[in-house]
Amino acid sequence: MVGSVAIDTIETPVGRAEGVLGGSATHFAVAASFFAPVSLVAVVGDDFPEAERDYLASRGIDLSGLEVRPGRTFRWSGRYHEDMNVRDTLALELNVFADFRPQLSQALRKSPFVFLANINPELQESVLEQFADPTVVACDTMNHWIASAREPLEALLPRVDLLVVNDEEARLLAGEQVIARAARRILELGPRSVLVKRGEYGAILFSPESVFAVPAYPLEEVFDPTGAGDAFAGGLMGYLAATGERSEGGLRRAIVFGSVLASFIVEDFGGQRLRTLTRDDIDRRYRQFVALTEF
Amino acid sequence: MVGSVAIDTIETPVGRAEGVLGGSATHFAVAASFFAPVSLVAVVGDDFPEAERDYLASRGIDLSGLEVRPGRTFRWSGRYHEDMNVRDTLALELNVFADFRPQLSQALRKSPFVFLANINPELQESVLEQFADPTVVACDTMNHWIASAREPLEALLPRVDLLVVNDEEARLLAGEQVIARAARRILELGPRSVLVKRGEYGAILFSPESVFAVPAYPLEEVFDPTGAGDAFAGGLMGYLAATGERSEGGLRRAIVFGSVLASFIVEDFGGQRLRTLTRDDIDRRYRQFVALTEF
Repeated sequence: MVGSVAIDTIETPVGRAEGVLGGSATHFAVAASFFAPVSLVAVVGDDFPEAERDYLASRGIDLSGLEVRPGRTFRWSGRYHEDMNVRDTLALELNVFADFRPQLSQALRKSPFVFLANINPELQESVLEQFADPTVVACDTMNHWIASAREPLEALLPRVDLLVVNDEEARLLAGEQVIARAARRILELGPRSVLVKRGEYGAILFSPESVFAVPAYPLEEVFDPTGAGDAFAGGLMGYLAATGERSEGGLRRAIVFGSVLASFIVEDFGGQRLRTLTRDDIDRRYRQFVALTEF
Repeated sequence: MVGSVAIDTIETPVGRAEGVLGGSATHFAVAASFFAPVSLVAVVGDDFPEAERDYLASRGIDLSGLEVRPGRTFRWSGRYHEDMNVRDTLALELNVFADFRPQLSQALRKSPFVFLANINPELQESVLEQFADPTVVACDTMNHWIASAREPLEALLPRVDLLVVNDEEARLLAGEQVIARAARRILELGPRSVLVKRGEYGAILFSPESVFAVPAYPLEEVFDPTGAGDAFAGGLMGYLAATGERSEGGLRRAIVFGSVLASFIVEDFGGQRLRTLTRDDIDRRYRQFVALTEF
């Protein structure tokens, strides 16, 4: 996984967390580590806390691709609205992340499962080119890149097996309001499938042959949505990597495991919930997803 | 089913329909008629078109409870926004519906399955009292009644097996933003279960023992959402009545059949789609719901 490691300060209607471990790579890697070995490619400053590095290592995450540069770690500060689907960025310091140009080691280039988190599409492509022959390539993006870097993004999409976006991003990318039509347009751009995340409403997977929809787990308390999408992708890719499943059924189960990880991470601030999570907790909630949806 | 029969004029972003057959009782009864015998209790004016009456009769709907009064039929005119979850009422003429006080015949009082559509809760209760010993009572309501007639609504709820609301109504009724918490509060008010309809995101059923979520069918074209909730309830109650199912599994299948009927009615204006629908179409889409959700 290639993405960001950050220090976040987060406010939600139910509380606040200051200076907590964040970033797409972090949440993805921790979620994936419950299933399969994961290598994190990112950059931090020399201020990055040793304790956080130890935590990532304790999850078995390979940190050989985590570059340490002189300077400060990427920092993000945001505030969620009463409707937690909406948030404002209060402060953004790219710091060492501004010059992030990952060069993968020979070992990392052989990774069979590649996740390109939400970074500049040109950077995503330059990283993807370094991989020898990946089995599954998944990719995230955001409104900012869709609007400002559409050309490199569209160049990347034919090389992507699974594009992961939220519904707003899907609408913007496709120029279509209705999600099913937007997804069909996106598939025409080349990815083999597109997963649309819909927050508290779940997620829906479109591929040329089929559609799969799964609701979100109906939580009574959401503390902090930060990292939900990354934990979703981490659970999904971790399950695919662990099982080697390539069938439609395998991808569906992977999406449910992604939903499970997303449902846990929002139960506390800044990924804290994943620190105490166990594989038994995950399997128990997977069975609750079965009970939630079967008819 | 007790509710309204209306003449609607509808504008949506994709078109307009003038003077079409509408009303909660109409859409519910037509949807239910694909499964089970249904009796419609409502009132129309002496201007009600004979052709529409013939159509309802052709669906096998019992019209013995459809009162005809001197005057005009209830008329509603509305316009949907680009986001079709939002609509404005442009004109509302209650006409003969203003004095609707149904007195049920002895035959109708024995109906085992009762649906109280979205009308004044005091009227809902006065109708419910006329039934001898119904097996399943389901009930709809809306923001207007929750705000202006909370006391009679709360008096009614303990006598209801299934309350059917949308998410906005659930939040208002419970005074809770988070749907899972709102549903738990509503269950404390007495209904045995509560079904929350979420438009394009599907529906979620809460009962004290379990939760069941089903996505909406991902349509590429929505022409007119009018009647979707009523067709949902009609499919649901029709299936329950036809099969006599009272189990959790039966209720879940009923909810999927409700989702199927809702997915069809929005494919054309003013319930037109149901005029050509067949039971085969319904069963085919039910199987598509299985394919959409199984993992």
